Amino acid sequence: MAGSSFGHLFRVSTFGESHGGAVGVVVDGCPPGLCITVEEIQAQLDRRKPGQSDITTPRKEEDAISIMSGVFEGRTTGTPILLLAHNKDVRSEDYQHLKDLVRPSHADFTYLKKYGLRDWRGSGRASARETLARVAAGAIAHKYLRERLNLSIVSYVEQVGAIRADINPSTVTNAEVEENIVRCPDSDAALRMIDLIRQVQSEGDSIGGVIRGVIRGAPAGLGEPVFDKLHADLGKAMLSINAVKGFDIGSGFDATHLRGSQHNDPFIITSAGEICTKTQHAGGVLGGISTGGEITFRVAFKPVATIAKEQETVTTDGVATKLSASGRHDPCVLPRAVPIVDAMAALVMMDHYLRHKAQNL
Amino acid sequence: MAGSSFGHLFRVSTFGESHGGAVGVVVDGCPPGLCITVEEIQAQLDRRKPGQSDITTPRKEEDAISIMSGVFEGRTTGTPILLLAHNKDVRSEDYQHLKDLVRPSHADFTYLKKYGLRDWRGSGRASARETLARVAAGAIAHKYLRERLNLSIVSYVEQVGAIRADINPSTVTNAEVEENIVRCPDSDAALRMIDLIRQVQSEGDSIGGVIRGVIRGAPAGLGEPVFDKLHADLGKAMLSINAVKGFDIGSGFDATHLRGSQHNDPFIITSAGEICTKTQHAGGVLGGISTGGEITFRVAFKPVATIAKEQETVTTDGVATKLSASGRHDPCVLPRAVPIVDAMAALVMMDHYLRHKAQNL
Amino acid sequence: MAGSSFGHLFRVSTFGESHGGAVGVVVDGCPPGLCITVEEIQAQLDRRKPGQSDITTPRKEEDAISIMSGVFEGRTTGTPILLLAHNKDVRSEDYQHLKDLVRPSHADFTYLKKYGLRDWRGSGRASARETLARVAAGAIAHKYLRERLNLSIVSYVEQVGAIRADINPSTVTNAEVEENIVRCPDSDAALRMIDLIRQVQSEGDSIGGVIRGVIRGAPAGLGEPVFDKLHADLGKAMLSINAVKGFDIGSGFDATHLRGSQHNDPFIITSAGEICTKTQHAGGVLGGISTGGEITFRVAFKPVATIAKEQETVTTDGVATKLSASGRHDPCVLPRAVPIVDAMAALVMMDHYLRHKAQNL
Amino acid sequence: MAGSSFGHLFRVSTFGESHGGAVGVVVDGCPPGLCITVEEIQAQLDRRKPGQSDITTPRKEEDAISIMSGVFEGRTTGTPILLLAHNKDVRSEDYQHLKDLVRPSHADFTYLKKYGLRDWRGSGRASARETLARVAAGAIAHKYLRERLNLSIVSYVEQVGAIRADINPSTVTNAEVEENIVRCPDSDAALRMIDLIRQVQSEGDSIGGVIRGVIRGAPAGLGEPVFDKLHADLGKAMLSINAVKGFDIGSGFDATHLRGSQHNDPFIITSAGEICTKTQHAGGVLGGISTGGEITFRVAFKPVATIAKEQETVTTDGVATKLSASGRHDPCVLPRAVPIVDAMAALVMMDHYLRHKAQNL
Repeated sequence: MAGSSFGHLFRVSTFGESHGGAVGVVVDGCPPGLCITVEEIQAQLDRRKPGQSDITTPRKEEDAISIMSGVFEGRTTGTPILLLAHNKDVRSEDYQHLKDLVRPSHADFTYLKKYGLRDWRGSGRASARETLARVAAGAIAHKYLRERLNLSIVSYVEQVGAIRADINPSTVTNAEVEENIVRCPDSDAALRMIDLIRQVQSEGDSIGGVIRGVIRGAPAGLGEPVFDKLHADLGKAMLSINAVKGFDIGSGFDATHLRGSQHNDPFIITSAGEICTKTQHAGGVLGGISTGGEITFRVAFKPVATIAKEQETVTTDGVATKLSASGRHDPCVLPRAVPIVDAMAALVMMDHYLRHKAQNL
Repeated sequence: MAGSSFGHLFRVSTFGESHGGAVGVVVDGCPPGLCITVEEIQAQLDRRKPGQSDITTPRKEEDAISIMSGVFEGRTTGTPILLLAHNKDVRSEDYQHLKDLVRPSHADFTYLKKYGLRDWRGSGRASARETLARVAAGAIAHKYLRERLNLSIVSYVEQVGAIRADINPSTVTNAEVEENIVRCPDSDAALRMIDLIRQVQSEGDSIGGVIRGVIRGAPAGLGEPVFDKLHADLGKAMLSINAVKGFDIGSGFDATHLRGSQHNDPFIITSAGEICTKTQHAGGVLGGISTGGEITFRVAFKPVATIAKEQETVTTDGVATKLSASGRHDPCVLPRAVPIVDAMAALVMMDHYLRHKAQNL
Repeated sequence: MAGSSFGHLFRVSTFGESHGGAVGVVVDGCPPGLCITVEEIQAQLDRRKPGQSDITTPRKEEDAISIMSGVFEGRTTGTPILLLAHNKDVRSEDYQHLKDLVRPSHADFTYLKKYGLRDWRGSGRASARETLARVAAGAIAHKYLRERLNLSIVSYVEQVGAIRADINPSTVTNAEVEENIVRCPDSDAALRMIDLIRQVQSEGDSIGGVIRGVIRGAPAGLGEPVFDKLHADLGKAMLSINAVKGFDIGSGFDATHLRGSQHNDPFIITSAGEICTKTQHAGGVLGGISTGGEITFRVAFKPVATIAKEQETVTTDGVATKLSASGRHDPCVLPRAVPIVDAMAALVMMDHYLRHKAQNL
Repeated sequence: MAGSSFGHLFRVSTFGESHGGAVGVVVDGCPPGLCITVEEIQAQLDRRKPGQSDITTPRKEEDAISIMSGVFEGRTTGTPILLLAHNKDVRSEDYQHLKDLVRPSHADFTYLKKYGLRDWRGSGRASARETLARVAAGAIAHKYLRERLNLSIVSYVEQVGAIRADINPSTVTNAEVEENIVRCPDSDAALRMIDLIRQVQSEGDSIGGVIRGVIRGAPAGLGEPVFDKLHADLGKAMLSINAVKGFDIGSGFDATHLRGSQHNDPFIITSAGEICTKTQHAGGVLGGISTGGEITFRVAFKPVATIAKEQETVTTDGVATKLSASGRHDPCVLPRAVPIVDAMAALVMMDHYLRHKAQNL
């Protein structure tokens, strides 16, 4: 209830601060008998890891994950799975000068107002380091979805600042996404994005952008009527990621300019005799329930708050002061956020699949 | 778990199909002692009601609400409140011709795939008539928030098709919103919106748009870290409304074009000695927790699916056919959706206030 | 969260006071396609109804139930089912003299302390009239369990005061339970129980007893490890019934006197080659999970609090006074509680079946 | 949803098998600012620890607990608290011979039926080692309840086999409970209990009994109407403890023999002008809500299943065989279960206090 759990039937509960003892997650409700290895989970974590390229933070965090329960002889047992990453080489002294400040557009101020005290080391619980727990749990969900439903998820950077990629969501592959350090499968746009990020970095600044998510192979029928619509839960999942400020599905905000006769997706019969839609403006969801078609959505990231440029702020005592961050931070969070979007999508789809299975299959 | 409940501590559970016996909601967890009357609830329902102007559907639905439990001598008792609206004058025969069709961009197809059967009368559970239950429950939450916290919510139509209003969210009032039938407080834009809607209507078509929501007086500290961030729950709430395809908070999608140095909101000290932010790009939420400043967000509505223009579709047996809707439908859902946005915002704020109170106050 | 909902996947939310507008329940998560009629539900309600014999209260409450949503053409649609019973012929003036009293062993005092106000008409939300909603919801669950799993539930009165019946739980049938007005299938004991209840009634007093519940045909594997053990949820379900003060499963409290070598149930092989237990001390549950054997449990009811005999009490202002109840109350609640025990057992089994199905089937 | 979490607002999620990497718990929703040390938690764990006396198992498990998150500079931060105990010196080979057996009255059979596979080392997730996580979490809840409400919990062994202690629940102290190794504050009865346990142990057998729980200082108003009655949640909490088969509150099963005029607790006025009850048959709860008086309940434990005496059983392949356990097991689980009862009571009271605070304070 205090906000660190997600999902009803495939339920993940994360814990940990960036500079506490450990960060991790308990996954409860995983079906038994799924083969899963540390290496499969670690592979996803490595996509999120700091220091993976020169356009990410040079921090060298140890994201080595351990499976501490719920897996026996390589298979899930159906009981809670603890995934744990110890915090190492934390340099809490780097944050000492932030102890009595509230950093602009960070959670320092709101945590202090909410709880009356805060762990000021490395953003505490508000640290993006928490997202490694999501990626780890998502790797398990994704494996199950692939094996059981042949469902796959591909996310990629679609936009950085004003640079927009030209990509066909229906054919893009994860291998293409991994071809460059910015995780944009349009290689021309990728080069320009990388240039922009380096320029922003050299200016001591940061830049935002958009990640596109694509889910293929979702069966029709996932999602619940009314409040727990599939795209409502996808939206919540994405909006819960650090630095995300917007979400839309299918035509999304662009649909607001359209007429019904333009936006409606006519139903047609495939050569195999299946009912499907001719166009995909709805993004694969009707009435909150998956159609069986491709699900596509966008996730808007603000420029990260930590910048080297000098900024105005105040101390917790209310005295005006200046702040220049030391600079072990990402100029653009999007390349490392791609596996987080993948993971959150997997968690949503997994939970909704089990919910649907319980009632209707 | 089947999706018809929302909130954890102020928990609403809606029920009802458009052509079944009744539509309504159980509100559990309302604090005791709140004075509430049927008239106060009905006033909000009348803003959502069909037939309220010539740019809404001419259907004359009875939305008369009754309080059936949980209120004694005019005050809430702390036990579940049942709010019930009987369905009257339903013309199920109007839908007879839709029985064996799947209407484009409607939930007919997905409900059939999910449940194996569907109530084809008036969209069944997917009908927007369900939203009257949300508005009724929201009226109770809003009353409590106003009385206890002096918190108020104002939503309005900001955009219809390409017509965008010019409104200062910080000063707009509910009275201004109610000054015209399109619920856009920029009177010039409102006239153009009304013209556009009438034109679309005459063409047998529909049009989308954007509603802006503004929450004033929210105390700092509402929202939970990690998954249940305040804006993640606002996003889910809005995305669960029929026809909504997108959500953003503060600068939202526009923030993706900005540098951190442009987007960050510097902290300053007010003349009263309070810490607040100089700008409001964050939309009143940092790290998922309210700052104490104004909360602003946008909700993107697609053009409604039901149009009089002829469309291609298929029967449930998979035979291609044509469909022209009979036309008792809204050409633009936004004017009637304003109180729904208000209501969902109230439900989110109420639940998060009680959650914060439980742990931290 | 405010306590009026039960179950996770087959979720029932009850509402209503005895003298408000209506009492009822929303059932969310019911699998679609189940045939259910008002008559099937009403048949169970009639077993709970006041005035059914001379050993129950002579109150003539209208328990006529309506299905208001979630059922279309006789089958469940998968969406929320509203079951509603209007309150009729309520004589609130009968309770006027109780308005400023706290009745001994009633909830008047605790509701007042909890909420600061209370609906004093007919015990308000604490009225046993609420249990009709449980019986109605349980009838749907029981039908599903019978059809899908061939699971059946039989409950009966095993003890009234010191009179204990001699019944073989493994062979008792619902028809036998219905053979007499006290719902004890040992006809000799039943006669003595009825005599005792009449005597207690004539003395203006009340008497407690024990109901035995038997669940047959539950598949192995229902129940969750650790907190949501099957018998823990059965226990909670039973303890939530008005006037219940104790619960045990299998040998229960008697097991505290036994040695492990006496209590352990040896595993054996049936002639059909199935593994089962030779004895049934565990009551059909091991480690919180059903074995596939018969599940048996006991539910202890206190004597009902409302008695005609004069009692000491105080006013809400703290003045000592005397109270003699007017006497339209049950001298022994057990005969009418049998269908409530049936219903709560059905709700627990249904929810656990869906939970098991979601994760493991 | 898979059963390893407890509580709504003070929510504990346990994980871990006896022979996996670690056992522990995530506590989410703890109010911020509570001072808590590892030593305070360890003190409770030491009461549960194996090997603490000659009447408990001689296993030497390492129950050393670490606080891995959610506590900063000695105080809770309001974010999830991870409490972790690594498994050390596990002798999985001791269990090798049990790999293909289903032990009588153990969870081997039901886990296998539920999940299709099981971790056969040391009972896996069904191991009582899981309860150390409950004790650790309960220590935090108990500390908060003592500091904030002056609420205290005392549990003790009331009965072992047929030996029943004579103790006044209203005056017994935790110091008295700790005076002997059986944790029965009636020293005469304690000696006889210890003798009985030693005798049972020498026979290679086990014995059951009853623990009494007493909660003092609970304010009036805790517990929810209808399903989440305080005693229903206490009952579920206790029934979820390994080897527990029964629960009752106040007069409990004994109340079934009483008349209403004997059982009802008259309300009186104290010399301080407070309303309270003259007698305590209800056990401190009316209508599911605490009265402000002492809460007393009983918990029935069966004799533990693991015994050295030879027993009949079958292999997982369905072949009859014999089993004699090796003997590092408790002949009577009650002395070590006392802190578990304390802990579960603390978790229930804590959660209900926060729920009450959210809605009504």
